[in-house]
Amino acid sequence: MKKILIIGIGAGNPDYITMQAVKALNRTDVFFLMDKGQSKDKLIDLRREICATYINADHAYRFVEADCPERVRGEIDYTAAVQDLNRDKQQTFERMINEELAEGEVGAFLAWGDPALYDSTIRILQAILASGRCVFEFEVIPGITSVQALAAQHKVPLNRIGRSIEITTGRRLAAGQASDADTLVVMLDAEDSYRSVADRDMDIYWGAYLGTPDEILISGKVAEVAEEIERVRKAARQANGWIMDTYLLRKP
Amino acid sequence: MKKILIIGIGAGNPDYITMQAVKALNRTDVFFLMDKGQSKDKLIDLRREICATYINADHAYRFVEADCPERVRGEIDYTAAVQDLNRDKQQTFERMINEELAEGEVGAFLAWGDPALYDSTIRILQAILASGRCVFEFEVIPGITSVQALAAQHKVPLNRIGRSIEITTGRRLAAGQASDADTLVVMLDAEDSYRSVADRDMDIYWGAYLGTPDEILISGKVAEVAEEIERVRKAARQANGWIMDTYLLRKP
Repeated sequence: MKKILIIGIGAGNPDYITMQAVKALNRTDVFFLMDKGQSKDKLIDLRREICATYINADHAYRFVEADCPERVRGEIDYTAAVQDLNRDKQQTFERMINEELAEGEVGAFLAWGDPALYDSTIRILQAILASGRCVFEFEVIPGITSVQALAAQHKVPLNRIGRSIEITTGRRLAAGQASDADTLVVMLDAEDSYRSVADRDMDIYWGAYLGTPDEILISGKVAEVAEEIERVRKAARQANGWIMDTYLLRKP
Repeated sequence: MKKILIIGIGAGNPDYITMQAVKALNRTDVFFLMDKGQSKDKLIDLRREICATYINADHAYRFVEADCPERVRGEIDYTAAVQDLNRDKQQTFERMINEELAEGEVGAFLAWGDPALYDSTIRILQAILASGRCVFEFEVIPGITSVQALAAQHKVPLNRIGRSIEITTGRRLAAGQASDADTLVVMLDAEDSYRSVADRDMDIYWGAYLGTPDEILISGKVAEVAEEIERVRKAARQANGWIMDTYLLRKP
């Protein structure tokens, strides 16, 4: 039987890796690297660095890189666009598992953050198994998310006592689809959607490149720091060619 | 200057510990152990085991145990009861930091899961600093939560594509205060509140003692597995004297 590991490697700081992930890296024969876009080189480098750092010298492994299909940008139906992308990815994954992994070998996908949060690898492997066109076992290894890095670096709890937290997307926030939760955590925001928050008295805790040497943290009332965040974010994206950021919004 | 580390040690599996946490353990002179209730011995044992496993033999450290004040159960105002508890804890923490930690030493609290999620240690240290009665620096080190362990062990994503997740409490779910989010993650549920879910066609992924050898996983439609979960949960709590469980509810 082939085995696939989906290994969460944490968000940004190589020290976010868990002992469980280190053990998983050392069981892996083949690492599948699937990155995309402008952040591609940096993210692939980080994965190679993690392997070089945590895999024992006597353990042999190899990398298989695949061109990762990219989502069509600007599509009105985001869910449909991601589903299309995932069908393309599914074909790529199937081919890699069939052609690049021998019976009895262990393959791994290294997921930024946690494989269960805004990542489709679990969903795609479940779809492949359901299709019956590949046979394998798989395991999921959790990792520290950018949400956790954000709270840790700002030294704030994610929740108020006994209250709830909604984790949502910039797209939903901008569309007015966020809930009335006491705390909102916003991910995947390409459009500075914090500007659309009606209650300007809310506290915002924003972070970019969390856990890396390029980390930027800004916090304060939305009314007071929204413009600063927008300016800093734009400049950082230009300087680095890409940005990964997240933020927490809390009612006053 | 005194330094305090709030170290997330993950939920259950000692292998959930991160390299960042291992490095933090090895910088710590004094571990403050604060546990409570029936799970006390088991949780303190796990913390001692983690220290014994991951701290280098040449690093000296000591434990300081404090009787942890307990929340008054059955109070109608949960938030007020927790606030009262935290004021008591704040006094205990202040005393420990003042009396048990020397200038230049590093003290640590080991937090189950992640210190930012349903844990008051960050809040209490911020309150102590705001009071001005203690002076210290502090850092927060994230850890794998039971939410992440739940998703990993069930091999399900936390979110649907582009959708949101609400993390909430059993108390809020039972009171009808959960949002309309596509996915609900319920923590701190002492009352089997999944029974109160109106839409019996929802999928539930339930887990107890996640990441430990006692782990139990049950999933299915609420209509089909709610009674089984209730029965299994009751028996496990009787057998072990305590239970820690969490679950995910997803719209069909």
